Amino acid sequence: MKTILWATLSANGNYAQSSPENPPKKEALEDFITHAKAAGNFIVGRKTFEGMLASGGGGEDFANLDIVVISRSNKEIPGATIVSSPQEALQFLNEKGHHTALLSGGADLHNSFLTENLVDEIVLNIAPVLEGKGLNLLINKSKYTFKPIELLNVKSLGNGVVHLHYKV
Amino acid sequence: MKTILWATLSANGNYAQSSPENPPKKEALEDFITHAKAAGNFIVGRKTFEGMLASGGGGEDFANLDIVVISRSNKEIPGATIVSSPQEALQFLNEKGHHTALLSGGADLHNSFLTENLVDEIVLNIAPVLEGKGLNLLINKSKYTFKPIELLNVKSLGNGVVHLHYKV
Repeated sequence: MKTILWATLSANGNYAQSSPENPPKKEALEDFITHAKAAGNFIVGRKTFEGMLASGGGGEDFANLDIVVISRSNKEIPGATIVSSPQEALQFLNEKGHHTALLSGGADLHNSFLTENLVDEIVLNIAPVLEGKGLNLLINKSKYTFKPIELLNVKSLGNGVVHLHYKV
Repeated sequence: MKTILWATLSANGNYAQSSPENPPKKEALEDFITHAKAAGNFIVGRKTFEGMLASGGGGEDFANLDIVVISRSNKEIPGATIVSSPQEALQFLNEKGHHTALLSGGADLHNSFLTENLVDEIVLNIAPVLEGKGLNLLINKSKYTFKPIELLNVKSLGNGVVHLHYKV
């Protein structure tokens, strides 16, 4: 089973955030649903999943999907399977016979999978917006490390959203 | 006169760095020279310019270009005009009759121009590499601000380098 990390970044490279005035891009959300349906599942952090439901996500889009929520509190969530770690999430989907696990966020969860080297492919949608303090480009100077990855595909999703697909 | 910010980011959205094992991408450097020749100039920080020269940049590529180095020390550099601020750099190029000023880096200089709202267009080359501590996606949560921008163009430069061009 391969694991695909799916995320949206701002044009200046930050993990995309949103606000009532700067809602998530429709094209990115549709791309997420497409990937989730193709995988038949997605892995998500508790807070991110609650945010998805609060903003009207779910219903038909989430029907027939194995939704795996990683949560420390272990509180039940209707329609989702609760696990406590990335490894447990992957094991659950693997045992259910999935060929792909789709990792939907948020940032902390994405970074846990990256740090633990659990990501096989990365899909990034780049939104046409500058975000963050000073609208700055961020540089991560501490403990410089790098890993070359392979660009599999680039395409425009419309309204300025660019879709990048990498093999790690 | 319009100001174009030119930069390379890693796939995970950080300002691209380099090392002997992870040198700057040839396709990105060639793209920079193309933009510099089209503008007839570039603005650069002192340390970044010294790095360019040390790694073999210059010669024919820099011939006939107005090179403006922003430096606090004011020390002379052969072939370059020294100024002390972004505004002074833009004023110099404007008075020389340029229609475009190309801003080449480094990160601090890019961010000064962004923060002071001096950037009209942004050209980003996305290198197929994950970089930084944990190879993480960065999120900038402090003082959330945003500015929508317009995607003008996206193209592949080869070897996995993706070229994004935005109007601010």
